[in-house]
Amino acid sequence: MTTREEPPTAPFALVDQHCHGVARSPLTTRQFTAYLTESDSPAAPGTTFFDTQLGFALRRWCPPLLGLPAHCPPADYLARRAELGTAETLRLLLGATGITDFLVDTGLSDGLTTPEETAAAAGGRAHEIARLETLAERTADTAGTCRAFLRELPGAVREAARTAVGFKSVVAYRHGLDFDPARPAPEEVRRAADGWLATRKPGDRLHDPVLLRHLLWTAADTALPLQLHTGFGDPDLRLHRSDPLLLTDFVRAVAPTGCPLVLLHTYPYHRGAAYLAHAFPHVYTDVGLTLTHVGARAGAVLAETLELAPFGKLMFSTDAYGLPELYVTATRLYTHALTRLLDGWVREGAWTAGDARRVTEMISAGTAQRLYRLDPATG
Amino acid sequence: MTTREEPPTAPFALVDQHCHGVARSPLTTRQFTAYLTESDSPAAPGTTFFDTQLGFALRRWCPPLLGLPAHCPPADYLARRAELGTAETLRLLLGATGITDFLVDTGLSDGLTTPEETAAAAGGRAHEIARLETLAERTADTAGTCRAFLRELPGAVREAARTAVGFKSVVAYRHGLDFDPARPAPEEVRRAADGWLATRKPGDRLHDPVLLRHLLWTAADTALPLQLHTGFGDPDLRLHRSDPLLLTDFVRAVAPTGCPLVLLHTYPYHRGAAYLAHAFPHVYTDVGLTLTHVGARAGAVLAETLELAPFGKLMFSTDAYGLPELYVTATRLYTHALTRLLDGWVREGAWTAGDARRVTEMISAGTAQRLYRLDPATG
Amino acid sequence: MTTREEPPTAPFALVDQHCHGVARSPLTTRQFTAYLTESDSPAAPGTTFFDTQLGFALRRWCPPLLGLPAHCPPADYLARRAELGTAETLRLLLGATGITDFLVDTGLSDGLTTPEETAAAAGGRAHEIARLETLAERTADTAGTCRAFLRELPGAVREAARTAVGFKSVVAYRHGLDFDPARPAPEEVRRAADGWLATRKPGDRLHDPVLLRHLLWTAADTALPLQLHTGFGDPDLRLHRSDPLLLTDFVRAVAPTGCPLVLLHTYPYHRGAAYLAHAFPHVYTDVGLTLTHVGARAGAVLAETLELAPFGKLMFSTDAYGLPELYVTATRLYTHALTRLLDGWVREGAWTAGDARRVTEMISAGTAQRLYRLDPATG
Repeated sequence: MTTREEPPTAPFALVDQHCHGVARSPLTTRQFTAYLTESDSPAAPGTTFFDTQLGFALRRWCPPLLGLPAHCPPADYLARRAELGTAETLRLLLGATGITDFLVDTGLSDGLTTPEETAAAAGGRAHEIARLETLAERTADTAGTCRAFLRELPGAVREAARTAVGFKSVVAYRHGLDFDPARPAPEEVRRAADGWLATRKPGDRLHDPVLLRHLLWTAADTALPLQLHTGFGDPDLRLHRSDPLLLTDFVRAVAPTGCPLVLLHTYPYHRGAAYLAHAFPHVYTDVGLTLTHVGARAGAVLAETLELAPFGKLMFSTDAYGLPELYVTATRLYTHALTRLLDGWVREGAWTAGDARRVTEMISAGTAQRLYRLDPATG
Repeated sequence: MTTREEPPTAPFALVDQHCHGVARSPLTTRQFTAYLTESDSPAAPGTTFFDTQLGFALRRWCPPLLGLPAHCPPADYLARRAELGTAETLRLLLGATGITDFLVDTGLSDGLTTPEETAAAAGGRAHEIARLETLAERTADTAGTCRAFLRELPGAVREAARTAVGFKSVVAYRHGLDFDPARPAPEEVRRAADGWLATRKPGDRLHDPVLLRHLLWTAADTALPLQLHTGFGDPDLRLHRSDPLLLTDFVRAVAPTGCPLVLLHTYPYHRGAAYLAHAFPHVYTDVGLTLTHVGARAGAVLAETLELAPFGKLMFSTDAYGLPELYVTATRLYTHALTRLLDGWVREGAWTAGDARRVTEMISAGTAQRLYRLDPATG
Repeated sequence: MTTREEPPTAPFALVDQHCHGVARSPLTTRQFTAYLTESDSPAAPGTTFFDTQLGFALRRWCPPLLGLPAHCPPADYLARRAELGTAETLRLLLGATGITDFLVDTGLSDGLTTPEETAAAAGGRAHEIARLETLAERTADTAGTCRAFLRELPGAVREAARTAVGFKSVVAYRHGLDFDPARPAPEEVRRAADGWLATRKPGDRLHDPVLLRHLLWTAADTALPLQLHTGFGDPDLRLHRSDPLLLTDFVRAVAPTGCPLVLLHTYPYHRGAAYLAHAFPHVYTDVGLTLTHVGARAGAVLAETLELAPFGKLMFSTDAYGLPELYVTATRLYTHALTRLLDGWVREGAWTAGDARRVTEMISAGTAQRLYRLDPATG
């Protein structure tokens, strides 16, 4: 029913090391465009969220997958999407990504597809990334007392570690990355939990810096990879307090646990993140979310990341959330930008074609397969 | 009498949303070159301010407008300029910019052309941007007492708002952008004014952080656009304290007033400024001054800004000051760089030609016309 | 015996304004690869330090100088190197760099070639850069008492100034660049020296912030150029505390001494460093170490530096350390990137070919010859 103007999959396997579910229900135009921005407000007067690099990239890559010409007007695209329905749109878009493994952050789930549903639409496999703050908040919701909370939390983390392939923290949002790097003392944790639970209502978010650190250290003890939001995000954030370099002392302190740290997003501090991946064997980096938002500039940002980042320390992700379009846009931008960048270096004699292929495989899948202990996809 | 090797105007209308007057009198070589740098000292031994990206760009674009070959030696250019005289030079250079509207910061005016004179030389229209600190200093010069100063200041701001299309603050120079974001309490303002006026001599600059904040909040209450110097500038500045991200909490606090914030210059923090324009509907950004100084690199810096900035949130300006040459250089660099950048994206299929035209119009004129409520220029 | 696929020297003279000796003894593979990274740990599981921009650049430029094809496997290269022996490898590699003057930081010397040996291998001249912290530590090793230390230190600095062409400080490592900019009072220095020497064992490093400042000011008094490590380096460093902009107040304070400051490395803060070189006549900048590590991206980083840096304020260096390969890689990357960058600007009409030649000469040799008072090399 649709014409595809692109081959349906990337020319190489893709492990999406950080992503989210997509909306289960039909979306209004306003709901759709809200997923195109990190802003939590309507677009400024006289502007639309389609007039962004992400908006233009989406219009480039998605319409052909739904049988429309590239760059068609947003209204045509949204009409076509409504006509096809949510399930068919999901199938057509996700099926075109070539992602074999989805590492889904399950910290946000209301109204979203499950990891299994998301992966199934692409014929891929689902894996879970457990979000630490959500885990703590759920534990607090049910624990009742401070004592019960503190007793149950490590078990909840260990239990999550049995099924999840990694953890994620949004301490950047809840406090900033300029937190005290040291493992908090038990007495300090007890006092903080007392304070938090004394006034907490179910569903309240965790902002206490001592408990946030306690969570990070509890997760580190499992030695599963720990993903950290760094760099830009929604306006809850103070961006200059999300500079991954603020983690330097924590990076050092946590090294003896054997816990790998994965710096997510990182923009506009991606060069600093790449430095940490260069300087510390247990640090990895990622440009998910970033490539999606910078659109036509994806190659430039990828190139900056590939200045100091060892090639085996950068991993592909989409950070897609809410819209299957974001999976398509992220994978197309990444594939296109990386290919073009490395082809350029090969053409000028700086790299060999064989090295370019090896590095492409590392970033796209190999490093994530090793780090998260995934079985390589069987063709 | 002169040959123009370029069409006299940009291929699209230009609203210069932040600029200054130019020198009325003939300039010595040393006075001329002092306008080519943000430094307040003579050039280092063995160097000249012409050996910079700005110097090379000026030599590229200006000599042909005065009948000389592009890239002619500085001495030839300065001799020709002296021969033509200040008024004719002004007319030849400004007339070639294609700027239809000049939003002139009147905070610096000694020995400079008025907004009307500047605009007239280009056949354009003049608008005023009132500089807050200058306004406060003039009020202090005449008010005499603390009580009179505090009583007269809001009126002076409101009076300025009747004729100006926006305000500007140089709090980045006077304190840094890491100021307390909250509106200061009246008692706090009174104490600060007391302290300042007790020792102040006429002409003394305002550096008191409480009064600087009081000014910002007083301006915000008018809901006129408020321009803020951010990023690089002269050596008075501590550049790392001019990072626009330091304004994040002020951006949030001021939102309910309805006052749009315009981040000027922003380099090398232009990606962070673009993030604020992305995350907050009332934030706009600009790369005036920056494109002029980075010369052949204008396209690269513009491209970085267009990563996260929504296309309807970036505005053209020259920040030209002192020399009409800076108007020419800024407009040529901008026009050339933007055209080339967008043509590249169109050629590779990332953007359509129609979208490129729309975005060019937004950045060059449309957004400023809407934000500052200017009538569109009539052709 | 070897085929050279490249002309043996750069097409212009090169003064290497900051470098180190190379290993005198044969190296194991692990020792060799440790010099390819700023990390002090083994490579992460499944990765190798050859899979980096530096690794790929080395494989591009060095094998042909030892008679092997470009991009040959690392094992082949290391075998060939072992077969040739350390002295012959040194001669073949350094002889191909075209460096006429080596300004060698003698702060690290164990097992390394002397400045004279290093320069001799290339047919160049050796000059010394005296490392301040090493000088203070050696003085402390022999002085015995606090009184003797404080009495001998200024003499040791002045003595070094008789033979060295400049000083270097690693205060970025020992404390961070966010130090108090003021010259410490004598009493403050005495107390700090008392404290340090009371517990110090021979060989212990200097970390006391007062003594570090005292050293900087003592060196500034000689008016010799003072090189400062800024930006990235080994994991001892907190990168965000090595931002050269943190030096702004020190830059201002030290101006009256007439001491030029040279900001080394600077990445990823090279734009801020370029701003300081723009704003202050006594500040110079450098991208040694950086170009080496970013490999195929050398041109991009150089271009960013050449946005605000006046062309007479940027100097070439390799920061080569341990491996003669790093001299080759740094010079080839620099020569190649600069030529390509400037040729591009000439081709598009932004610069003239004559200006490009002049600027190349300034960055490559001229500015360093003037600043360090070197005789121009005689062809």
